[in-house]
Amino acid sequence: MSGAILYHFPFDPASRIARLALAEARIEYTETLVRPWEPDCPLGQMNPSGMPPVLRLDDGRGRSLTLCELGPILGWIEDEQKGPLLLPRDPTERAEARRLTAWFERRFSEDVNAVLLHERLEKPLLRLGPPEARALRDGRAALKEHLLILEGLAGSRDRLAGRNLSQADLVAAAHLSVLDYFGEITWANWPSLKDWYVKMKSRPSFRSLLADRFQGLAPAAWYADLDF
Amino acid sequence: MSGAILYHFPFDPASRIARLALAEARIEYTETLVRPWEPDCPLGQMNPSGMPPVLRLDDGRGRSLTLCELGPILGWIEDEQKGPLLLPRDPTERAEARRLTAWFERRFSEDVNAVLLHERLEKPLLRLGPPEARALRDGRAALKEHLLILEGLAGSRDRLAGRNLSQADLVAAAHLSVLDYFGEITWANWPSLKDWYVKMKSRPSFRSLLADRFQGLAPAAWYADLDF
Repeated sequence: MSGAILYHFPFDPASRIARLALAEARIEYTETLVRPWEPDCPLGQMNPSGMPPVLRLDDGRGRSLTLCELGPILGWIEDEQKGPLLLPRDPTERAEARRLTAWFERRFSEDVNAVLLHERLEKPLLRLGPPEARALRDGRAALKEHLLILEGLAGSRDRLAGRNLSQADLVAAAHLSVLDYFGEITWANWPSLKDWYVKMKSRPSFRSLLADRFQGLAPAAWYADLDF
Repeated sequence: MSGAILYHFPFDPASRIARLALAEARIEYTETLVRPWEPDCPLGQMNPSGMPPVLRLDDGRGRSLTLCELGPILGWIEDEQKGPLLLPRDPTERAEARRLTAWFERRFSEDVNAVLLHERLEKPLLRLGPPEARALRDGRAALKEHLLILEGLAGSRDRLAGRNLSQADLVAAAHLSVLDYFGEITWANWPSLKDWYVKMKSRPSFRSLLADRFQGLAPAAWYADLDF
């Protein structure tokens, strides 16, 4: 494929996962920022769900491939590799990387993002008024339960799925990075997870995420700091 | 691996997908039926989410591998194959099979199953009282929208993701088969989808699903009929 365009929204966790995975795989791409809640968003024509991320590949000879959202994008990236990149070779770690990916995309998204990111991110974007105290409290309580589980994993393994870097690390770091921008993670409470996140944040693939800025809101003081 | 045990609940769509995929791959397994809502369910010790399906593999020499839910199970089955089985080789069909899998596991589950299966299946199991008319109406309206999309796919392709059988067909057929048991699908309204479903239902992998019976409730008259 000679050309790749990533259609993404910088504060969408799945879009961040795609950016990290493409950067880890050293696949060059151009980017088009999209706002999926706006009626003229080009994703309406490309993805039946209308959601980012979408990766459009073009071979320069009139053939193209449209990859809609994470499953197709991560799967295609791994298919293109000569050796394991997103999924470790070891069967246990491989299963764990897949389990944790689904855990974030389903559980974490429903328990935490649908509540906390709705209040902090979607409401200002869609002008839905100020956040509600009760929803913030519920979302933060759910986040705490997930962080407790992740602290356990980070304390007992080098990487979230085992000894090797995998898509589980990219998925988790992307999700946490969005919440971190909004100052929702008190890292001092989660020392093992913090050590893991420092390592993730220091990777070259993470740089562009740390440069993202949300309309009219500065990130938490430590957001882009590699030594926080 | 010398032994495989599938822990599943027969009316859980994901459990049905695992059974179909194992049968299509001709992987022999023994089964343990579980009731994940009961406090002593063995899945509590095997899967952090507590949910089925879980596939436990044992190599007979003390090493085992626990595959929790669909991503790890389908991924492992495909890893074990010599050629493509669940994911077609053609890049477009491969992406489409992955997209549709995520569509069902996320969208269809949230829009339809969380409403309609909650009323028809979870409420009797958990003794939560009779179904609510409003929820049934909402769930059926959401199901209709999804069936409209699937009718379009089935009318323009041999299989849901393209020319070849893929995991998209297994995923879709498993989800629809549960709703069909409860008589929720009026097949006459969806002629192309019906043709596709007749083919799916006729596969040997489907036989055990058609023999499932739900406590105290007979299936729709046509449920196990291959020529309906």
